[in-house]
Amino acid sequence: MKVIKGNIVSATGFGELTILENGFIVLDKAGKIAAVTEHLTEEQKRLPLMDYGERLILHSFVDMHLHAPQYPMLGMGMDLSLLDWLNTYTFQMEARFSDVEYAREVYQRLAADLIHWGTTRVVMFSSLHTQATWVLMEELEKAGLTGYVGKVNMDRNGGVNLQETTKESKRETLRWLDGCERFQRIKPIITPRFTPSCTDGLMDWLGRLAEERNLFVQSHMNENLEEIRLVKELVPDCDRYWQTYAKHRMWKDHTVMAHCVHIDKDEIAALKEANVVVAHCADSNINICSGIAPVRQLVKEGVWVTLGSDIAGGAQLSMAEVITMTIRSSKILAMQKQEDGNFLSVAEGYYLGTVSGHKYFGSGEGFCVGDMFHAIVVDDSDRISLGRKMTVQERFERMIYRMKKENIVAVYSEGKKVLG
Amino acid sequence: MKVIKGNIVSATGFGELTILENGFIVLDKAGKIAAVTEHLTEEQKRLPLMDYGERLILHSFVDMHLHAPQYPMLGMGMDLSLLDWLNTYTFQMEARFSDVEYAREVYQRLAADLIHWGTTRVVMFSSLHTQATWVLMEELEKAGLTGYVGKVNMDRNGGVNLQETTKESKRETLRWLDGCERFQRIKPIITPRFTPSCTDGLMDWLGRLAEERNLFVQSHMNENLEEIRLVKELVPDCDRYWQTYAKHRMWKDHTVMAHCVHIDKDEIAALKEANVVVAHCADSNINICSGIAPVRQLVKEGVWVTLGSDIAGGAQLSMAEVITMTIRSSKILAMQKQEDGNFLSVAEGYYLGTVSGHKYFGSGEGFCVGDMFHAIVVDDSDRISLGRKMTVQERFERMIYRMKKENIVAVYSEGKKVLG
Repeated sequence: MKVIKGNIVSATGFGELTILENGFIVLDKAGKIAAVTEHLTEEQKRLPLMDYGERLILHSFVDMHLHAPQYPMLGMGMDLSLLDWLNTYTFQMEARFSDVEYAREVYQRLAADLIHWGTTRVVMFSSLHTQATWVLMEELEKAGLTGYVGKVNMDRNGGVNLQETTKESKRETLRWLDGCERFQRIKPIITPRFTPSCTDGLMDWLGRLAEERNLFVQSHMNENLEEIRLVKELVPDCDRYWQTYAKHRMWKDHTVMAHCVHIDKDEIAALKEANVVVAHCADSNINICSGIAPVRQLVKEGVWVTLGSDIAGGAQLSMAEVITMTIRSSKILAMQKQEDGNFLSVAEGYYLGTVSGHKYFGSGEGFCVGDMFHAIVVDDSDRISLGRKMTVQERFERMIYRMKKENIVAVYSEGKKVLG
Repeated sequence: MKVIKGNIVSATGFGELTILENGFIVLDKAGKIAAVTEHLTEEQKRLPLMDYGERLILHSFVDMHLHAPQYPMLGMGMDLSLLDWLNTYTFQMEARFSDVEYAREVYQRLAADLIHWGTTRVVMFSSLHTQATWVLMEELEKAGLTGYVGKVNMDRNGGVNLQETTKESKRETLRWLDGCERFQRIKPIITPRFTPSCTDGLMDWLGRLAEERNLFVQSHMNENLEEIRLVKELVPDCDRYWQTYAKHRMWKDHTVMAHCVHIDKDEIAALKEANVVVAHCADSNINICSGIAPVRQLVKEGVWVTLGSDIAGGAQLSMAEVITMTIRSSKILAMQKQEDGNFLSVAEGYYLGTVSGHKYFGSGEGFCVGDMFHAIVVDDSDRISLGRKMTVQERFERMIYRMKKENIVAVYSEGKKVLG
């Protein structure tokens, strides 16, 4: 057991911050939170103490949607339209991951960078390559991350060297799942790329597999208008995009749907009813001109909303940057709708980028007794003096807006220090 | 004389890149560009060579609008509406600059950070304090920056401890100008904060002073709708905001107007006719919910557009980040107007954040013979392998999106190496 001390900023609800100055978090041997307190008991005082002094202790980030094989192309092709971008960069990039050595090099770097940026839990797309997907899972686990990784399924509308036959897709999915048993903290998740990439036959098989093996599902939905039209064309018996997943048993509790940009009342009701998780990807949605998702409205209406970097449609791996882009994006919508002040606050953005994602892994709100400890320690001592003492909340807000890699001086994942 | 070698990426026009791989820039003794060439003459080969190898040589950035005394509050108060933000943070913050020692500490840091982020030329607001404004000019000059700094004038609608009488404002402005003669590269610029802050009497006096002494002018215009309404109320004889400046001889060649978010045909015509420079501040306009300026339209219609970080409405000093936020902001407008593809390209953003600003200082487009050399050297060797060779243009695009302080390994201002 051990004790961690610092200025604790806990997201105890959507938009609700609980600040404990010079507070203590007691961890048990398994890395679970045993106590969060202002004063230690005599017994706790005898435990080894990690004193972070004036530094901030924040929730670590959760990245609920990103494409690992697109990491090398971060920040590239941003002038292209979605289809050109997919064909010129994305599909060619992903096809390279048939090369396992290359995959190892990229995924080692990705895993290290995630930790450096304070992201400890992920829900992630790999490519369609079985071998490379195992490598990704290995590297994430080695770096100390927790999460879900999916071998991508796509048996239609792929790129050159980036498509499977239905038979291959099924065979490789089973082979991949068999090889996943050795992982402790990185679990497989069923991953049809999106409806346009998967035939009905494959979708049906994946849905049944997810059900039989009790696996979660992730995919994309309602990212842009052209895609929505395409889905209608491809699956004429479904009125709504979500029904193309529901039809095959994949519209269910804990299914993660990236984007959900263009969304109406009925779709919101469908999300809520099934407890499907929205992974909102503000930076990507702007960069590739998908649209602006009504993120605050979704939350207010009771939808489970989390955030994703969506690299490489998104140009930043840092979830602090993703949070502030999410806030900006919500401000743009507030301006468009002339709804003064109806934008995400910093506290709300922080909640979405941390706790709302941690809940996917069974954690509660805030730093809760019994939960695995996932946190970052932030040193903002390079801050410019305001000419007066800054409150912890001011320092926190500023760090969400200004966090650089070097501000993150320690990272805890599953109660273990994985950086610093 | 000396020679600089590297991969030169020159913005030779709006959206036009000229790339010289392993090219040379020859500098004369005064720091002016004597040649840009693929091959050195025998004589040039004997000059001292600074070989930057595979690194990129880019134009340095020009920040055409920022508030120096707001630097300490960067990233703070982002949940507040404009008026609360001004009263809770901004005016209180600026009032602190009556303390010259505090000013010294902040401005030393600001000047150093500007250079670290590759900004070598600025057009900047100080506060209304004469002494602190000199300190700012000193520190900028010491750090190697070139630019224009204005002691702010405001004789109405200020904050507590942040307003002058008309008489004080005039007296201090003259005193300030007298003390500016000692500066070589930092010049004074006449700076009525904006129409709501200055009485007609003061405006008139400032306009005449600018004319008599042949000084440029900077101010704010059409930032948000409430402000526009207020100006109409305050100056009922002017139909348009710009006329409140024109009336007092301040709507003229090289006048810098920050924002110009809400703008119509007539105002665009007025900007063009007078050769007034727009300092577009995308990040700030989003953060404080001012609106989205039609930046690409302005350029296309022939308005002189440059970029500003507008700290601390803007949350980032890095002009690379400002450029990509400008691009994002233009993409949002393209989506709103359903004008597919009518957004700023990376090359266009680069032009606006560099060359368009350098032109304010008399430079031409691209790296031109005869111009003072203003450049940054960018090391992107920490990039992740794409599994193939990246072109210089790809590396450039990626660096505009991903530039961190540590990528900027050398900075040249007025031909002198000021960093690295």
